[in-house]
Amino acid sequence: MDLKTILIQIENPKLLSLGHFGLEGESQRITNQGALAATLHPKSFGSRTFHPYIQTDFSETQLELITPVQESLAEALRYLTAIHSVTRQNLATSELLWPCSMPPHLPDTEADIQIAQLATAADVDYRQQLAKKYGRRKQMMSGIHFNFGLDESLLSALFQQQKEYQDVTDFNNAVYCKLARNYLRHRWLISYLFGASPVAPNNFFTTETSSLPVRTIRGSSLGYRNFAEVNVSYTDFASYQKSLKQLVTAGHLAEAKEYYGAVRLRTRHKQPDAISYLEFRNLDLDPFAPAGVSLATLQFMHLFYLLMLYLPDCTSQEALALGDSQNETVALEHPATRTALMAAGEELFQSLQAMLTVLNLAAFAPLVDKFYQRLLKPQKTPAAKLLRLIEKHGYQGAGLQLAHEQQAHFDKNFYNLAGFEHLELSTQILLADAIKRGITVEVVDESDQLVKLTWQGQVEYVKNANMTSKDSYIVPLLMANKVVTKKILAEHGFLVPKSREYRQLAHALADYEFFAQRPFVIKPKSTNYGLGITIFPESSSYASFQQALTLAFKEDSHVLVEEYLPGTEYRFLVIDNQVAAVLLRIPAHVTGNGIDTIAQLVAQKNSNVLRGTHHRAPLEKIKLGKIERLVLAEAGMTLETVPQKGAKVWLRENSNISTGGDSLDVTDEMPVSYKKIAIAAVTALGAKVCGIDLIIPDLAADSLDYGILEANFNPAMFMHVFPESGTGRRVTENILDLLFPDSR
Amino acid sequence: MDLKTILIQIENPKLLSLGHFGLEGESQRITNQGALAATLHPKSFGSRTFHPYIQTDFSETQLELITPVQESLAEALRYLTAIHSVTRQNLATSELLWPCSMPPHLPDTEADIQIAQLATAADVDYRQQLAKKYGRRKQMMSGIHFNFGLDESLLSALFQQQKEYQDVTDFNNAVYCKLARNYLRHRWLISYLFGASPVAPNNFFTTETSSLPVRTIRGSSLGYRNFAEVNVSYTDFASYQKSLKQLVTAGHLAEAKEYYGAVRLRTRHKQPDAISYLEFRNLDLDPFAPAGVSLATLQFMHLFYLLMLYLPDCTSQEALALGDSQNETVALEHPATRTALMAAGEELFQSLQAMLTVLNLAAFAPLVDKFYQRLLKPQKTPAAKLLRLIEKHGYQGAGLQLAHEQQAHFDKNFYNLAGFEHLELSTQILLADAIKRGITVEVVDESDQLVKLTWQGQVEYVKNANMTSKDSYIVPLLMANKVVTKKILAEHGFLVPKSREYRQLAHALADYEFFAQRPFVIKPKSTNYGLGITIFPESSSYASFQQALTLAFKEDSHVLVEEYLPGTEYRFLVIDNQVAAVLLRIPAHVTGNGIDTIAQLVAQKNSNVLRGTHHRAPLEKIKLGKIERLVLAEAGMTLETVPQKGAKVWLRENSNISTGGDSLDVTDEMPVSYKKIAIAAVTALGAKVCGIDLIIPDLAADSLDYGILEANFNPAMFMHVFPESGTGRRVTENILDLLFPDSR
Repeated sequence: MDLKTILIQIENPKLLSLGHFGLEGESQRITNQGALAATLHPKSFGSRTFHPYIQTDFSETQLELITPVQESLAEALRYLTAIHSVTRQNLATSELLWPCSMPPHLPDTEADIQIAQLATAADVDYRQQLAKKYGRRKQMMSGIHFNFGLDESLLSALFQQQKEYQDVTDFNNAVYCKLARNYLRHRWLISYLFGASPVAPNNFFTTETSSLPVRTIRGSSLGYRNFAEVNVSYTDFASYQKSLKQLVTAGHLAEAKEYYGAVRLRTRHKQPDAISYLEFRNLDLDPFAPAGVSLATLQFMHLFYLLMLYLPDCTSQEALALGDSQNETVALEHPATRTALMAAGEELFQSLQAMLTVLNLAAFAPLVDKFYQRLLKPQKTPAAKLLRLIEKHGYQGAGLQLAHEQQAHFDKNFYNLAGFEHLELSTQILLADAIKRGITVEVVDESDQLVKLTWQGQVEYVKNANMTSKDSYIVPLLMANKVVTKKILAEHGFLVPKSREYRQLAHALADYEFFAQRPFVIKPKSTNYGLGITIFPESSSYASFQQALTLAFKEDSHVLVEEYLPGTEYRFLVIDNQVAAVLLRIPAHVTGNGIDTIAQLVAQKNSNVLRGTHHRAPLEKIKLGKIERLVLAEAGMTLETVPQKGAKVWLRENSNISTGGDSLDVTDEMPVSYKKIAIAAVTALGAKVCGIDLIIPDLAADSLDYGILEANFNPAMFMHVFPESGTGRRVTENILDLLFPDSR
Repeated sequence: MDLKTILIQIENPKLLSLGHFGLEGESQRITNQGALAATLHPKSFGSRTFHPYIQTDFSETQLELITPVQESLAEALRYLTAIHSVTRQNLATSELLWPCSMPPHLPDTEADIQIAQLATAADVDYRQQLAKKYGRRKQMMSGIHFNFGLDESLLSALFQQQKEYQDVTDFNNAVYCKLARNYLRHRWLISYLFGASPVAPNNFFTTETSSLPVRTIRGSSLGYRNFAEVNVSYTDFASYQKSLKQLVTAGHLAEAKEYYGAVRLRTRHKQPDAISYLEFRNLDLDPFAPAGVSLATLQFMHLFYLLMLYLPDCTSQEALALGDSQNETVALEHPATRTALMAAGEELFQSLQAMLTVLNLAAFAPLVDKFYQRLLKPQKTPAAKLLRLIEKHGYQGAGLQLAHEQQAHFDKNFYNLAGFEHLELSTQILLADAIKRGITVEVVDESDQLVKLTWQGQVEYVKNANMTSKDSYIVPLLMANKVVTKKILAEHGFLVPKSREYRQLAHALADYEFFAQRPFVIKPKSTNYGLGITIFPESSSYASFQQALTLAFKEDSHVLVEEYLPGTEYRFLVIDNQVAAVLLRIPAHVTGNGIDTIAQLVAQKNSNVLRGTHHRAPLEKIKLGKIERLVLAEAGMTLETVPQKGAKVWLRENSNISTGGDSLDVTDEMPVSYKKIAIAAVTALGAKVCGIDLIIPDLAADSLDYGILEANFNPAMFMHVFPESGTGRRVTENILDLLFPDSR
């Protein structure tokens, strides 16, 4: 079967970049001093039995982070990064992840390496057998597994272009076997380009190992290998399965999964006869990439897989044996030296560049050239780079330095879910909490902030981190209508400021009696900085009423007349009949220091890492626009004014976070009596998730006095999680509790 | 207490037009031959024990239609009209309502007048006692009861302007008692202006009655009156209550409700010591008004009530006795003669016009003048008008003619809920069905199509007649995203045409392989008449694909490439896991007759009463705009073309009802297998109410073949209720079943 010719006939180049991609990354948990962590796997990750993303591998300290299968490499890496981000956020205080494939310094007594405390006896037994057979130290190496499945439409297009196979499954398996064989033959180039385990900690090898440093201990015979009797056939899928079965029957392997080949042929439950994807296992952790692997590496790997399809095949055992020995040669070379297989490497890169041209993949030429430079200059390989660092700081010192650098990368925007920063912050936080609990997540529509969560077969969709199946269709439709909301609340006996909206002066005048007897405020509907607003703190004569209305109608064609409630406005976030958080929002302002101008004070305030733009950070930067200047002007100030020390200067009248407001969590300070009112009001509206705004004249007063200003059916979650001051409330956890009570 | 002076001091004239208004209208059910109906009260109205709107009064044939209390007269009449409309729609075939206060010809044997078959023995007993005491014939008279409560802010403003009363309840009761006394004193004018029971059917009076015709039998001593010993005091509220209590104790009245005074003082359960409203009982049915009373009459009555507050008071028994005797005089005058109380009438009208001026109510002067003309010209009174008709057609003939006229008024737009025509038709139908079942209805927001339904304490809000609490918040958010909808359906194994949207030619071209192997269609996203559409019924070469895309991008910046499914599109309306209706929608078209032009044929089609505009009629009129002309032009026709007999001429390519399409109900014809698919798909989406569109190549085929095009979370209800052809499906009943299963 001449796959090369067939590939060339595929008209659509995009097909070649499609596929199914999954990543698994292992890492050792360490203390911030570089020692293996003594703590147990964090409880917050829930049960390892079911967790789709965060598992342990051999030891209790060895995390295994697993992405769901994605349709693009960028997506797969994005997930791996996000899972890293969540894992790191939830480690015990000061714990880090060790960045290298070779473990940190291990306990002198091998038995002190704790086997993972898995839930089932069978899982623990299996690890104990491995410990006995290979030694616990060897099991402590970590790497990246790259699962790659060909796109169905590519397979189908290929199938239609050939005549050798009648059966599509036979064809499918033949294609994958060819890829696997060629990969085994040429994988030495991967060991050269990405090997990153040059030395081991002092007490790692029990016998003398004279050959270190090398390109990759893990990728060589010094690494984690099956014993010599384990020989698996790649001639075809049937032979592969048969040889594995025989090895298990003969007792050489406990189970098929004990086979540690550089590539494994994988099937899915539904179709046990067809290879579904290949598992490539020989990538070392990249200690210079935050998530242990870079996108460029993954893209090169993908092109390399295509090249393995494109290159001539060879099914002979001799060819595979040659591949093994070439890999061993390259793996054990000194990282700083040119490889002995330079000529073969040149040939592979020439074939790769030729393939890019023929298959219309020329866009990848610069990427390939970058790795070609690495072939020419061994000092550019990660093994060489890591070795230089080790020579400078020692093995532990180099590893620890890189661990801190990786952690700093994730800590920089600690409030983000790395890889998902373009989603709104609330959705990022919800996803992070779901990943942590082991709830399967899928972003269904990015611009819609629509995610799918699955836990033990139960599917829930969530929009904006707050809209769920637990609320009914009609409730947000009612709440969208402010007049109707107030009407329902009033019918249930809650205090709401009476309010009416007018388009005509005459209609407003006719309602004089309705408002005149109490404090009220007249305001243009869409005023932003107080123009046209008149407050009557007690009552009003008809003449004053008329005058104030005329003023308001000059500013807007819609005018509101509203009962005036003096006091402080609080946002109560009610989720599932509980107050999840209470927030006090304060209009954008700065506090003087007697030295700096207002503009300078704003710049200082805006430098806070919590402040960003477009709901992607916990707080918004204060803008110095027309409105802010007008508010200042009304107070007789400009941006150049230097406020006295301690003087508060307001830049806005509204308290929205989105216009630079501050937030103060007051959940614990809020009296229970007001919380009960908030819960009862939300219950009256029939909502499960609701942000309800109460204005309270005096929290300390004995009598309950309040007014409900608004009920919000799309309340922002993030502002409670990351307030400017006070305790953050992880309200997204309440959403998950509501959706999946047993996942808590 | 000088209420006149106080009224004048009220600054805001609008206050005087506020109030609480409720109406009760009685009517006898008759056959279309004018005989009392022999049928039972319609079962479709549910239990009379709970029905808030449709009750029976004394006899099984005597309907009592009751409005909820409203804040304006127009609203109250609107409700009475709507309840009339619903009642008439649900009467047995050919039954009508008798339009006059005096009943139609009654059975010769009094016992053949059937007492209402109420649920409780006590209710039936009470009516049997009444039958025994007053005779069944007298109980068969009908009229309008007008309940009127003063607006609280008016009462409060009045209270603050006076000094006589310290207690607000005492003041309230004094105001109502004054109104009631003055009404009793001057009510003769109401008998004159609105009396409409000049004669009785032959066998009505058992003794000779020489004085007929009169203005109002019902309003005179010939009417339905208590016996002479029943004297009730109106001096103050305590005396009123005391005198009623004594009459019951003495056995003169069975209960307080047996008191038939022209005005009764009414309280509410919550406040038994305060008069809440007055019940005015002496309005005859207006046989010339469709709902038995006109807005002008009600407005005049309201002004008359205000006049009763405004005029000097007189608490003496003599004054009330004079009022009674003056009313008797006027009631028994011949309808065509001038009244003996002309001078007093002139004086009342002068006072009324003066009051309008002083209280800034001059806008009502023309209305008052209209009724003043009636005082001057007795032939304009309804009694006189009715008498003229009776003289011409006989008593039965006149009544039957008016009954038919009233019915025709309601039948004209049979699909509307009279009084609520400005709501969307779907909401009108839902309200009508709710009123019929005895579910309390309230329009919460007219422009939002938001209604509140209450049944036995359970409150449900509904928007657009289809959005309810039974659907979840997230489901419509999912369905609003067409890509997500298809994704979910595909995940559940349903057949959906694959579809992708592009903004750039290059991106679309890259997906060639995705579409090329099957039938597909390329179309500009917002094309209206087929420009830029290319269908590939089998597959396409890359070159043709490119050509078709280029064509489509010339028409729109967004282009859809969609798998092409040949067949017919059906709308399945699924409600609560059942297919409530299946509709075939056909694009706007006319069928030639070989004589008329297309323009003429369209005009004929548009003359159908079912065709209207803006979703207020079951079908929309076909417009002859740019698109229709283009579609004709593409077929080589113009509006002046005369199509051959039987030739179908299409005016649109899309089948929407909103662009003049036809609708054909095919619920019964649709095979169960497809209905099951529709239900299962809606279940997969998690929806309770959903319009789902299936394209089916061949209904008759053995194999199930279909594609799901769209799931609509806001499906139109009305088009199923009133299809252009086929059986109408009252799908709003399914919505009510879903919300209130026990109300069925």
